[in-house]
Amino acid sequence: MSPALTGVARPGRTGPAEPETFAGRLLHHHAVGRWSAANENQSWTPAPRSVPALWRYAELRPFAVEAAEFVKGEDAALRVITHLNPGHPDHEAAVGHLYSGLQTLKPHERMTAHRHAASAIRFVLEGEGGWTAVDGDRMPVGPGDVVITPSRLWHEHGNDADDGLVIWQDCTDDPLVNTLGANFFELHPQGTHLTGGPRNDTLARYGGLLLPDTRRRAENSPLFSFPWEKCREALAAAARAGQHSAFDGVIMEYTNPATGGSVTPTVGAKLQLLAAGEHTRSHRHTGSVVYVAAQGRGTVTIDGVDHAWSAGDTFCVPSWSWHSHANPGTEEAVLFSYNEFPLLERLGLYAEEPAGQ
Amino acid sequence: MSPALTGVARPGRTGPAEPETFAGRLLHHHAVGRWSAANENQSWTPAPRSVPALWRYAELRPFAVEAAEFVKGEDAALRVITHLNPGHPDHEAAVGHLYSGLQTLKPHERMTAHRHAASAIRFVLEGEGGWTAVDGDRMPVGPGDVVITPSRLWHEHGNDADDGLVIWQDCTDDPLVNTLGANFFELHPQGTHLTGGPRNDTLARYGGLLLPDTRRRAENSPLFSFPWEKCREALAAAARAGQHSAFDGVIMEYTNPATGGSVTPTVGAKLQLLAAGEHTRSHRHTGSVVYVAAQGRGTVTIDGVDHAWSAGDTFCVPSWSWHSHANPGTEEAVLFSYNEFPLLERLGLYAEEPAGQ
Amino acid sequence: MSPALTGVARPGRTGPAEPETFAGRLLHHHAVGRWSAANENQSWTPAPRSVPALWRYAELRPFAVEAAEFVKGEDAALRVITHLNPGHPDHEAAVGHLYSGLQTLKPHERMTAHRHAASAIRFVLEGEGGWTAVDGDRMPVGPGDVVITPSRLWHEHGNDADDGLVIWQDCTDDPLVNTLGANFFELHPQGTHLTGGPRNDTLARYGGLLLPDTRRRAENSPLFSFPWEKCREALAAAARAGQHSAFDGVIMEYTNPATGGSVTPTVGAKLQLLAAGEHTRSHRHTGSVVYVAAQGRGTVTIDGVDHAWSAGDTFCVPSWSWHSHANPGTEEAVLFSYNEFPLLERLGLYAEEPAGQ
Amino acid sequence: MSPALTGVARPGRTGPAEPETFAGRLLHHHAVGRWSAANENQSWTPAPRSVPALWRYAELRPFAVEAAEFVKGEDAALRVITHLNPGHPDHEAAVGHLYSGLQTLKPHERMTAHRHAASAIRFVLEGEGGWTAVDGDRMPVGPGDVVITPSRLWHEHGNDADDGLVIWQDCTDDPLVNTLGANFFELHPQGTHLTGGPRNDTLARYGGLLLPDTRRRAENSPLFSFPWEKCREALAAAARAGQHSAFDGVIMEYTNPATGGSVTPTVGAKLQLLAAGEHTRSHRHTGSVVYVAAQGRGTVTIDGVDHAWSAGDTFCVPSWSWHSHANPGTEEAVLFSYNEFPLLERLGLYAEEPAGQ
Repeated sequence: MSPALTGVARPGRTGPAEPETFAGRLLHHHAVGRWSAANENQSWTPAPRSVPALWRYAELRPFAVEAAEFVKGEDAALRVITHLNPGHPDHEAAVGHLYSGLQTLKPHERMTAHRHAASAIRFVLEGEGGWTAVDGDRMPVGPGDVVITPSRLWHEHGNDADDGLVIWQDCTDDPLVNTLGANFFELHPQGTHLTGGPRNDTLARYGGLLLPDTRRRAENSPLFSFPWEKCREALAAAARAGQHSAFDGVIMEYTNPATGGSVTPTVGAKLQLLAAGEHTRSHRHTGSVVYVAAQGRGTVTIDGVDHAWSAGDTFCVPSWSWHSHANPGTEEAVLFSYNEFPLLERLGLYAEEPAGQ
Repeated sequence: MSPALTGVARPGRTGPAEPETFAGRLLHHHAVGRWSAANENQSWTPAPRSVPALWRYAELRPFAVEAAEFVKGEDAALRVITHLNPGHPDHEAAVGHLYSGLQTLKPHERMTAHRHAASAIRFVLEGEGGWTAVDGDRMPVGPGDVVITPSRLWHEHGNDADDGLVIWQDCTDDPLVNTLGANFFELHPQGTHLTGGPRNDTLARYGGLLLPDTRRRAENSPLFSFPWEKCREALAAAARAGQHSAFDGVIMEYTNPATGGSVTPTVGAKLQLLAAGEHTRSHRHTGSVVYVAAQGRGTVTIDGVDHAWSAGDTFCVPSWSWHSHANPGTEEAVLFSYNEFPLLERLGLYAEEPAGQ
Repeated sequence: MSPALTGVARPGRTGPAEPETFAGRLLHHHAVGRWSAANENQSWTPAPRSVPALWRYAELRPFAVEAAEFVKGEDAALRVITHLNPGHPDHEAAVGHLYSGLQTLKPHERMTAHRHAASAIRFVLEGEGGWTAVDGDRMPVGPGDVVITPSRLWHEHGNDADDGLVIWQDCTDDPLVNTLGANFFELHPQGTHLTGGPRNDTLARYGGLLLPDTRRRAENSPLFSFPWEKCREALAAAARAGQHSAFDGVIMEYTNPATGGSVTPTVGAKLQLLAAGEHTRSHRHTGSVVYVAAQGRGTVTIDGVDHAWSAGDTFCVPSWSWHSHANPGTEEAVLFSYNEFPLLERLGLYAEEPAGQ
Repeated sequence: MSPALTGVARPGRTGPAEPETFAGRLLHHHAVGRWSAANENQSWTPAPRSVPALWRYAELRPFAVEAAEFVKGEDAALRVITHLNPGHPDHEAAVGHLYSGLQTLKPHERMTAHRHAASAIRFVLEGEGGWTAVDGDRMPVGPGDVVITPSRLWHEHGNDADDGLVIWQDCTDDPLVNTLGANFFELHPQGTHLTGGPRNDTLARYGGLLLPDTRRRAENSPLFSFPWEKCREALAAAARAGQHSAFDGVIMEYTNPATGGSVTPTVGAKLQLLAAGEHTRSHRHTGSVVYVAAQGRGTVTIDGVDHAWSAGDTFCVPSWSWHSHANPGTEEAVLFSYNEFPLLERLGLYAEEPAGQ
């Protein structure tokens, strides 16, 4: 006689006939029965709480300007309009475990130096006179520039201009580091870490074809600054050289020159070019992505729904959602994006699938 | 004239004078203002939702026995009494992102073969006749044995005995893999993957002083089975050799022989011996830990509160909680535990601190 | 008109008509012309200087005994009968860059503690009372035991017995480290590094199924000692579990438990079982191998020539030589061997090819 | 009674009184006694056979021109004037295991495509119209350009000019790969691997601030070409940014962008700037170095002996030789060099020491 089979339940099957009082009695001991897991609680494929969403810069920018009036430098540690995923308004993330928000700096404003266990990637949207300093390197930043502030390094920001706001997009892994119970935050006791004269040297040392003759295995990217002009040219050169992905057009990654890997251990950043008339193939993968439209116009199709975007807009693609890109216009379009791929690859959890197989 | 400083706010400071309608208008666009982050939302040190907790085996075992009656093999994919952290009854985890539960198998029962992206570590509490099969290796398991079921490998379980329950503790990283939107679950189409004759060979191949002459860099441990007798002897030998930690007594790690690293990419497992009369020093670290009392009695002190335990009990220490161990009795005590250290180390987020510095 | 082709020369072709005085005039400037490289100097496949060779223990042992008489402890740093490859008597190596020799210790003898950049692997051939100490761990060693002395760690040896020689086979990468101009050798100023009481603990800490809870990424194996009984049993268990290679019978590797890799960065060690009646398939690979017959009798066929061996004999297989093993008898035969595979794999130079493709 | 000490012999001590016939009888069995190792055979510090040497371009260039006349393309696989270290004229290497030679290509000449297990780094000395193709990427090369031809990739070279020689310096690890018995050499059956249209794209894809969005962990550098202008500018930028080494002036490394490591697994390449009036501090390290003077004039002091050099000259520093650099002039001087550091670091054999400690 063969042994009975347990666990053949399939979705839709009726669950066990549990005594009425069982769950209540058990909860008293901080426990719960789990026997229909493969039906409901246990998803058969990824089931993220985040949903696709698009935030228009034209709609959010006025709030950033307004907040710059009533949020005084003396009263707050930062001043950010944070993108909230509609799928989880209680969980402060744009999608998955990616934080995204619009940071505003007023003329002659300067933020207190601080550091934290989370990592940040900043993409500048507008303004001249902005600067950011990381580990002593004080870098001027303008539209399209990307700046990395690695985990645990002191950093601070400012706006040197006489007038005009500086607005950039703050991208961090705060939601991840917080949920893992591993975040630390510290303000610099002197308010600034730029004592002894700021340098502006890491781009010169780490941004060329040769690297310094020192040990370079640091997990943290020794290169903090990726100027727009150089990155945009790298993208154009790759396009001319025939680099192309069926799913993403011409796509290149911001890279830690010391390792050839992602700029932070958990979050990667990319820049992609959609040629005039391009329609990419659809695919899906584990790992969430936040896109910032850097140039032109286009449309993203997520799980069958089209979302049109233009420069400055932000949108997100949740983990395991089908998505494809289109540039129906006659001008080139460029998307900056940051993603959870490094996190998933380090944990052996990255998976992808093209449509139409 | 020096620029104004932004961000000098300290905890307890009053926030900015935000217009009354601002938050409502902004939420309409799926966004929220963040300017008091360093005061409330942004923790200065890890602030996990999980709290310390202890589950007594004597209290939960009757529920496991009762559920074995009303949960039929035909009706459910599994039959587990799940430990729920009192700090977050909505989030099915014992602590942090660690799942823990008591799985029961009745005589002559057998579970459908399945596989998933999450990894599992099982610690057997009682019963003879239990077996688990992973990737074709069918291993008999008894009290104290540990079995690894790595991500994506087929596995199945059963109880060959004519009478008597088999009860083991299921430890998985399901909460992490689910929240990352990266879980996949699949039942084997034939119900079993043990076609063509099961082997029982990985312990012989990977559990000795020599390893097979093949590439061994697999992220997944090629060794699935860690028999209690061998592990307990390794712990005793280390004790005799003078191995000792001020915080943990004699503590040794279940190890992937192919890498010298943890048995799964996210969750590690350890076995520790508290000598009669031992009182360890207190420390704290990022990363949650679930302990299962394997032998004897003792007391854990978590954030100043004592919790007495005896064999079979389960307790948890949340990330960044102070904790120390004591064995006030005259017999040796042994704790099995599994932890999030591999996860945190891979992401560069592990930190620790001894008390009294 | 198509450009002329340079470099079409094939082996056997006549070389260029070089002016008679050219080479002499050029050599005056410490230079030489290279234009027939692909014909003669440049080999098309590996062309090692080493040739296959077999050294009988019965023939060399009397010399080891004789040398023990006339080489006094006060007069020499060591006392070794060194295997010399017949292909290069000027280059002190058994094959390739592997040093091999028979070291003898007389009763109550003790060697001065020393250390060097080269790594050593010792296989004990005979004698009771031998011991070796590495980095403070003083290990008794008997026939069949393997001891690792990693690069740069202090070590010393002795024979505690009242009578009877201890003879072991010293295997080192001295020829490699010397030719790379990277060797350092140092005698301990006190003659012994075993001050403060020797331990005998690394086998207990690193030789079981669990490893100590400390960082374990050391390039040097923290486990120094591989006792014969445990290794022979691991080999037998693997045989029972069905482990088998067409080229080598049942073959297992001595492994650094901290990494799952080879016991030294350049030289690996293996133990293999040839069942009664076994005839393996032939193959070749880059990397030299020295074999020491540990048990029984057999025959190795190297580039078509048979070499019969019995316990205690040593033989070598040069890089890229075809070789297969046979055990025509009715008893099991066991070979210990050490090889250059880790060196070649680290440099991306490992290649292999089975016969009969 | 304490045991006798063996091995206390120090350099200069008289060796054991060996019977007259012993060595002869033993050599008959292909073995040799080793008991004075720490005196003579066993060096106490690295004892490379190579000696310091300098080759003047003005002296060797005429031979390269002369050879271009009598070595016909049809008769030879290559046409190189090879630098021979005076310390070992039988071993075809400039120093240690580094091959170096001057390769000449005549107008409209083209070499047969080939590949080998060894890796090569080329530094162009003179000529316009030269090109090199690696794995389908056909790159124009001019003075100062560096080209990598990684292990096992097809490559070929040519000179498209109507007149004028192209001369470059070939740097390879042939001596190492040959001595390890691991070299393979193959001519392309079609004579060229540039079928289907050559590309010139890897610099565009891998030479900018962003990298392609594909797996990049290849041991072989995906970037083959390092143009002089870009490298010289990177050096100048690093100098302006304050990068400086007491031993080497401003020194930067040619880097595999996929890993942040050296351009080949065994041989690294660097470019260094000696400011006018610079005198560096002396140091020594394991690993040989070959220098090619790329710009200006200077003096290297090796083990106390001065060697003056000017642009085009080649000189070598053997492993563990003391050396310092000086630029006594008023113009900047630049040295290209390639070294064995990656080889030594992979094997755990790198060591260095500053003078005057």
